[in-house]
Amino acid sequence: MNTLEQLKNEYARYQAMGLKMDMSRGKPGPDTLVLSDDMMACVDATNYKAADGTDTRNYGVLEGIAECRALFGELLGVSADKVLVGGNSSLALQFDFVTMAMTHGLRGNSPWKAGKTKVLFPVPGYDRHFAIAAHYGLEAVTVPMNADGPDMDAVEKMVAEDDSISCLWCVPKYSNPTGITFSDDVVKRLAAMKTAAPDFTIIYDNAYCVHDLYPQGDVLRNIMVDCENAGNPERVVAVCSTSKISFPGAGVCAMTAGPETMAQFKKRLFFQTIGHDKINMLRHTRYYRDMAGITAHMQKLADVLRPKFDLVLSILEERLAGKGVAQWFAPRGGYFISVDVNPGCAKRTLQLMKEAGVVMTPAGATYPTLVAGGPGGDPEDRNIRIAPTFPGLEELKTCAELFCVCAEMVWMDK
Amino acid sequence: MNTLEQLKNEYARYQAMGLKMDMSRGKPGPDTLVLSDDMMACVDATNYKAADGTDTRNYGVLEGIAECRALFGELLGVSADKVLVGGNSSLALQFDFVTMAMTHGLRGNSPWKAGKTKVLFPVPGYDRHFAIAAHYGLEAVTVPMNADGPDMDAVEKMVAEDDSISCLWCVPKYSNPTGITFSDDVVKRLAAMKTAAPDFTIIYDNAYCVHDLYPQGDVLRNIMVDCENAGNPERVVAVCSTSKISFPGAGVCAMTAGPETMAQFKKRLFFQTIGHDKINMLRHTRYYRDMAGITAHMQKLADVLRPKFDLVLSILEERLAGKGVAQWFAPRGGYFISVDVNPGCAKRTLQLMKEAGVVMTPAGATYPTLVAGGPGGDPEDRNIRIAPTFPGLEELKTCAELFCVCAEMVWMDK
Repeated sequence: MNTLEQLKNEYARYQAMGLKMDMSRGKPGPDTLVLSDDMMACVDATNYKAADGTDTRNYGVLEGIAECRALFGELLGVSADKVLVGGNSSLALQFDFVTMAMTHGLRGNSPWKAGKTKVLFPVPGYDRHFAIAAHYGLEAVTVPMNADGPDMDAVEKMVAEDDSISCLWCVPKYSNPTGITFSDDVVKRLAAMKTAAPDFTIIYDNAYCVHDLYPQGDVLRNIMVDCENAGNPERVVAVCSTSKISFPGAGVCAMTAGPETMAQFKKRLFFQTIGHDKINMLRHTRYYRDMAGITAHMQKLADVLRPKFDLVLSILEERLAGKGVAQWFAPRGGYFISVDVNPGCAKRTLQLMKEAGVVMTPAGATYPTLVAGGPGGDPEDRNIRIAPTFPGLEELKTCAELFCVCAEMVWMDK
Repeated sequence: MNTLEQLKNEYARYQAMGLKMDMSRGKPGPDTLVLSDDMMACVDATNYKAADGTDTRNYGVLEGIAECRALFGELLGVSADKVLVGGNSSLALQFDFVTMAMTHGLRGNSPWKAGKTKVLFPVPGYDRHFAIAAHYGLEAVTVPMNADGPDMDAVEKMVAEDDSISCLWCVPKYSNPTGITFSDDVVKRLAAMKTAAPDFTIIYDNAYCVHDLYPQGDVLRNIMVDCENAGNPERVVAVCSTSKISFPGAGVCAMTAGPETMAQFKKRLFFQTIGHDKINMLRHTRYYRDMAGITAHMQKLADVLRPKFDLVLSILEERLAGKGVAQWFAPRGGYFISVDVNPGCAKRTLQLMKEAGVVMTPAGATYPTLVAGGPGGDPEDRNIRIAPTFPGLEELKTCAELFCVCAEMVWMDK
C-alpha cells in the first residue's frame, strides 16, 4: 500500500518529466491508419467507374453507388436498398436528422421544439450527442447505463408516460464510453416498447459495429428486424461509418431508417446537395470488398489496439484493484475504457493529470448539460473516459500509471 | 424562310432518329473530367501530410488544411484566414447557412420564419436556390436580371423598404442561366445599399468564378473589399467549389463571410462534424497548387467547352437570327446559354424537344415558386436554359438544330 507521501513523490517525478500528451479524444493512431494507406490510390484514371458503369467523378446518385450501399447494408444489417451513403461523417447525418426534426418535424408530426422536446440519453454517454441536443435547446433527460444497456424499466416508464420525449440517443455496441453492448433483451424491449410521443425515434449510433478487440466479439442483436416484427418500422435511425475503419478524416458514413423516415430524409438531402463523394465510396468498396474484407481488416486493427487496452487494464488492475479507488469495465471492443472513481474525485484526478502534462476527456463530458459547448454534468463527479487508441504503448504506459497515481492520491487526500 | 410545313417535316425526321439525350443539368462531360484524372491518385501512402505536418487521414482541423484555405482564398478574393473549406458541395454550405438562419437566426437576430421572411432572387436564376428557399417556406420575391446584373434601382428600393427581405441570393459571375457578370457599379451598390432588415445577407454563389471560355474573361469586382469599405462587413456569404474544375462528384467547396457570420457558422459546424475530407483537400492543392495552376487548368477546360458554346451560338445565329423567334446572350464563360423565346412559347418548345427524345431543363425552372420541388414559375413562359457542356459536339449539333426547329415551329404555330 502506498502512502500519500509516496504517491506525492511519484507524482512529482512525473511532473518533472515535462510530459505533453493528449488523450482527450477517441482518435486512431498512425499505427492503425497505416493499415488502410493503400486505399488512397486504389481508384485512379483507369478504374473510376462503379460496377454498374456509373462515372463516380460526375454528379448524381444521391443515395450513393450500389456497391457501397451493399457493403454498408452488411454493416447495418439491412438490405442495400435501405441504405443511404453519406459523406465522411456519421455525426453529420445525426446532426442533419435532428435538424430536420427541428425544422420540419418527423413523418408529419410537429417539429421538435427548443425548451420542450426531450431527448433521453443513457449515461455515461457520448459528449457529441449531448452537444447537438444542447445546440437545439432540447432538454436532456438521462437513464443509467447498466452492464446490459440502458435501464429498460426506467426507459419504458419514461417514454410511455412522457409524450415530450421524442428521442432516445445511444451507442448500442461497445458503447461510448462504457464499452458495454446492449443485450438481446434490451434490444427487443427498445424495439417493442410503447411510446407516448407519436414521433418517437431512436438514434442508434453504431459507430463500433465491427470494432472487436478479441476473436470473440460481442454480438449485437439486429434491432431493425425487431422493429419490423414489433410493428414499429420507423422506430430506429441507425448510422455507422468507416471513421475508425479507414480514415477518420476521409471515411464514408451511412444510415438506414424506416421507409417513411428515409423518404423524408432523402427529400431533404435532395435540397441540400447533388450527392456525396462517390470516388471515395468506390475507394472503400474496392479496398474492403465485402464483410469478409472488413472483418479481416478489423482483425489487423485489433492486433494493434488489443495490446493498448490490455496494457491500460493490467495497470489499472495492478495498481488500483481492491483499493476502493476506482471501478472499471474491460470492454471487448470499441474505443474507450470507462473508469468510475469515487464520488467527487473525477475532476480533481484529471486536474492533476493536466498539471503533469496529460490532457484527458474533461470530467463530466460523458454526461449531458443544456449549455451548448459548456462542461458536462456528471452529478457525482466520478466518471472518467480513457481513450487508449492514439498513443504508442510506451506513452500509454506512462499515462495509465500517472492516472493511477493521480486517482489514488485524490482518493487518499479526501 | 421555312414554312411551317417544312419545319414539321424536319421535326418528323428528328423524331424518326429515336434520339435519347439529356441536356437538363449543367453537368461536365467526360471530355473535361479527364483533364483532372491524374488527381485521383496524387495523394498516397507516401505523401498524405499537409505542408504544416497535419496528418490528413486523421480527425481535426475543422476549417480545412492551411494550403487549401489559401488556394480558395485566391478564388474568393480574401485572405486564407477568412476561408472555411467544406466537403464536396457548395450547395450544402448554402443550404446549411439558410438552415442556420431558420433555426438560430443570423448574428443575434430573430430566426427566419416560414411564410414571413423573404428572399430576393434576380430572375431568371438557379432552380436549386429557389428549391432551398421553398423547402423552408421562405417567400421568393424577384427582380429582373439585366445585362449588368440585377436591376439595382428595384433592389435598393425593395431592401430599403421591406424589413422582411433578409436575403438576396445570386450567382454574380457568368450567372446561371443568363451568363452575365455583375458590373462594378452593381457590385458596389450591393455592398453599400441600405437595408431595412438588420440581418440582411447576400448569398453569393460564385460557382463560375474562374470559368472563362475565352482568353479575355469577365472580371468580377471584389465585393468583400467593397463591403468592408462600405461598413457592411457581414453583408456577403460567398461560396465556390471545384465541382466544375475537378470532379462534380468529388470536389471541394469553400466559403467566406464576415467575421461574426463566419464565427456563428463555424460554431454550428463544430456540432455538425469533426471535419471535412482533408485528404481530398490535399489532392486538390497538390494538383492545382495555386491560382496560376487553376488558371492553366481552366484554359484546358475552355479549349474543350468553347467549341460547344460556339457551336450552339452559331446554330442559333444561323437558324433563328432576325426571325423574331428568340433572343439570347453569348456568355464569356460559365455553363449555360439562356434563350428567351416569345411569351407563351417556352413550355411548348421543350415539350416538342421531349417528344423527339431530348430532355432539357424544364421551362420555368429558372424562376422560383413556393411549392418545394414543384415546377418553376416563369410568368411569361419564355426563358429556356441550354446546358451545352455534357454532350459531345455531334450530339450537341443535333440538339441545337432540333431546338431551333422546335422554337420556330411553336412560334409560327401561334
